[in-house]
Amino acid sequence: MYSPETLHQRINEAFSRLVLPPEPSNLYNPVVYTLSQGGKRLRPMLVLAACDMLEGDIEEAIHPAAGIEIFHNFTLLHDDIMDQAPLRRGKETVYKKWNFNIAILSGDTMFALANREIVKTRAAVIPALVELFNTTAIQVCEGQQYDMDFETRDDVSISGYLEMIRLKTAVLLACSLKTGALIGGASSISQDLIYDAGINLGMAFQLKDDYLDTFGDEKVFGKTPGGDIHAGKKTWMILRLLEKAGEEREKLSELYDQHSVLPPADKIGLFKDEFIAKGIPGEINELIDKYYTAAKGSLEKLAVPAERKTVLLAMIDSLVSREK
Amino acid sequence: MYSPETLHQRINEAFSRLVLPPEPSNLYNPVVYTLSQGGKRLRPMLVLAACDMLEGDIEEAIHPAAGIEIFHNFTLLHDDIMDQAPLRRGKETVYKKWNFNIAILSGDTMFALANREIVKTRAAVIPALVELFNTTAIQVCEGQQYDMDFETRDDVSISGYLEMIRLKTAVLLACSLKTGALIGGASSISQDLIYDAGINLGMAFQLKDDYLDTFGDEKVFGKTPGGDIHAGKKTWMILRLLEKAGEEREKLSELYDQHSVLPPADKIGLFKDEFIAKGIPGEINELIDKYYTAAKGSLEKLAVPAERKTVLLAMIDSLVSREK
Repeated sequence: MYSPETLHQRINEAFSRLVLPPEPSNLYNPVVYTLSQGGKRLRPMLVLAACDMLEGDIEEAIHPAAGIEIFHNFTLLHDDIMDQAPLRRGKETVYKKWNFNIAILSGDTMFALANREIVKTRAAVIPALVELFNTTAIQVCEGQQYDMDFETRDDVSISGYLEMIRLKTAVLLACSLKTGALIGGASSISQDLIYDAGINLGMAFQLKDDYLDTFGDEKVFGKTPGGDIHAGKKTWMILRLLEKAGEEREKLSELYDQHSVLPPADKIGLFKDEFIAKGIPGEINELIDKYYTAAKGSLEKLAVPAERKTVLLAMIDSLVSREK
Repeated sequence: MYSPETLHQRINEAFSRLVLPPEPSNLYNPVVYTLSQGGKRLRPMLVLAACDMLEGDIEEAIHPAAGIEIFHNFTLLHDDIMDQAPLRRGKETVYKKWNFNIAILSGDTMFALANREIVKTRAAVIPALVELFNTTAIQVCEGQQYDMDFETRDDVSISGYLEMIRLKTAVLLACSLKTGALIGGASSISQDLIYDAGINLGMAFQLKDDYLDTFGDEKVFGKTPGGDIHAGKKTWMILRLLEKAGEEREKLSELYDQHSVLPPADKIGLFKDEFIAKGIPGEINELIDKYYTAAKGSLEKLAVPAERKTVLLAMIDSLVSREK
């Protein structure tokens, strides 16, 4: 069994070996820029950990793992155009540093590069991997579309929001785990269990993200809390607050809107107070725990010796208990 | 052997069977809109014709053929954003009819759909098909980037232009033919020959496009000639004219620029006259013929009975001799 540190190192080595052509530089410089920014490498870590758990050969999983990470970075690149986000991980986004057209096209190139990495493994699993990967990619696009649709809708339901984050975030974590499992030779039942674990982990992960965005400790979290409130972003917490707001619903909804009349600090303060008054932090943590427990439950059912599950279970623990 | 008409019908049937989810409608309506506009279906025709030539089962090639057509339409969709083109085949482009973000995301979805179609064939050929397809996709992106780079450069060479159209156009025709050949069970030598035929066909095809854009008969061609001259687009003809212009080079280059001082009709008239005076139409037709002859030469070398080559040879003939 490999430690998380070793898996992380293997992924970084794989990326350092990924050599791209120098020309056309306007196409490849943004790709190199994007991929060299590091990040947690969470998705490829899940691929390798799942493969290793099943006693598969992680060398067979390293390229597909890189493919999924390249895809994830491609979606961030295109999302940043759509959201007109000037910064990502503290650095200028590609469309800002270069321009819209270069960002579109270098993103497209990354998606093709990702698919090419996916098939660098043993032939027997390739058909299933490519099908899984591109079905997941389509779902991620659906999730992003719902997210954009929600911006201009005032009738978003909690179940609609949960379905959106399932598509936008959870399916790619599930795809990562299942990719590792497929390469590791998992049975069909095990593949389903591990996919379900990924969905539940992804839900917990995204809800935790939403929670930390408002209630994270600035010193630990590394950014000023309240970004989602400031942007008027529809999250589980605001949808649940509005559900519980009774007569105040319309007033709160207007104040939360991105064109709110409130100054940012006042708006953030007001909604943090409202969330606390209505018990929303406790509720979202209960929900996170529900998904977390379900993820662990699926893994526990897997017909794999308990000691082989320790790395993946520890990863899940640290993702859900993280404070940043 | 199937006639071109039968192959075309099979492709249309495949597209009519391609059912997409109804929601999110902002994602899928643009995909349906794009794919239902028809067009020549040239690339999937080449896939099926190559497969059939090798006595392969065209049922095994129909999904990959559709995949390549979906990819081609995806590139047009994203190109139209980058070129800010309001019309395509006489209808509003996706970014114009919906918006930029929807055009980006529905394009991304089409690329994933394309990859998913590519793997709907027999397992043995899938690794090679996915690798070929995505390598080609990367080259098409490179070609598009060079094309955009050329817009603001005044030092584009003829060889640079030919390399750009090889990447932007020819490799996808070559990929189409090789995909059909792979599914049809062609030997490695035959695959290479048929790929070369595709490259040469693609070069002839694009140069013919450039020629018709200026010298096409409006009644047959269906649009007013001179679009490239009007837009100041770098084509083989203008690059060759400037090469032969001697002292007039700088003056002609300025007049050809997209910010030319000339009224459109005068500009088109002037450059048509200049092309004719310098013998450019004859030269480009010689070059087209050179590529056309090379494409046929590669096909003739194929170890396949001559009578099985007739459909593909006839398709090549009609593509190169077309007046629209």
